Amino acid sequence: MNIVLHEPEIPANTGNIGRTCVATNTKLHLIEPLGFKLNEKELKRAGLDYWKDLDVFTYDSYDDFLIKNPGAKIYMATTKALKIYSEVTYDPDCFIMFGKESAGIPEDILIHNKENAIRIPMSGDIRSLNLSNSVAIVLYEALRQNNFANMQLQGQLHKYKWE
Amino acid sequence: MNIVLHEPEIPANTGNIGRTCVATNTKLHLIEPLGFKLNEKELKRAGLDYWKDLDVFTYDSYDDFLIKNPGAKIYMATTKALKIYSEVTYDPDCFIMFGKESAGIPEDILIHNKENAIRIPMSGDIRSLNLSNSVAIVLYEALRQNNFANMQLQGQLHKYKWE
Repeated sequence: MNIVLHEPEIPANTGNIGRTCVATNTKLHLIEPLGFKLNEKELKRAGLDYWKDLDVFTYDSYDDFLIKNPGAKIYMATTKALKIYSEVTYDPDCFIMFGKESAGIPEDILIHNKENAIRIPMSGDIRSLNLSNSVAIVLYEALRQNNFANMQLQGQLHKYKWE
Repeated sequence: MNIVLHEPEIPANTGNIGRTCVATNTKLHLIEPLGFKLNEKELKRAGLDYWKDLDVFTYDSYDDFLIKNPGAKIYMATTKALKIYSEVTYDPDCFIMFGKESAGIPEDILIHNKENAIRIPMSGDIRSLNLSNSVAIVLYEALRQNNFANMQLQGQLHKYKWE
């Protein structure tokens, strides 16, 4: 599975997302400009000591990402989507993309991806969930649909068995 | 739906969890001692301006929580569980409990709740996900199973429809 962050702004969010990606054998793709440096102290603190174990790729731009990942099946998470994130079927090699915290994915990208736009249901007047929470929700739904097949469940079951 | 945090330590996590609860019409139950004051600036910042809209309850202890919520169906999220969180059926009035960031739910509580213990699959040597991400993952699975019925989807569909 692949998570794509388009111009993320807040290092603690990207740090937590990195931690979630390590915990799920998920690749993380970061599209610049980022609102922080990748070696910044805050990012490492938020990502704890896991960042070194992360498969992370950075790109100059969205176009650069597209060129380097030809044929990628990309879902776009946006509050503007009609489809709910749990209504689509995620294959194990798909990409799930999220926009920056303050503005989401730009309209000029969404307009070409209406069919693959997904949203997380929210009630009332709330504008959005925290970005790292949004990634966790959609990513774990995608993993659930694939029976957590990439995550060595048997080993973990053994490891955590109660005495 | 109800989220229970047992002695949470980090205000930014509880703030983000409060934001998720507001976004989903979920009640938040906090069992003391907390690692912060509820009016602390950092908690409000992490929870943005949503904290005032949150249904939040605090308790002196786990026993106090049990006395004030008799008959509550409680799921316990712990890395030590055998069942995966998506294998159980959540009814709309259930409670999902999470332990403190550094140690999880104490063994002396888990030992009486083995049947209702659930875990989030993780791979490799990672110790845990971020607490607010863990809450988001399990809560949205519970909401998904209930077809997001408490969240006024029609209104939102209309609001976000693309032109």
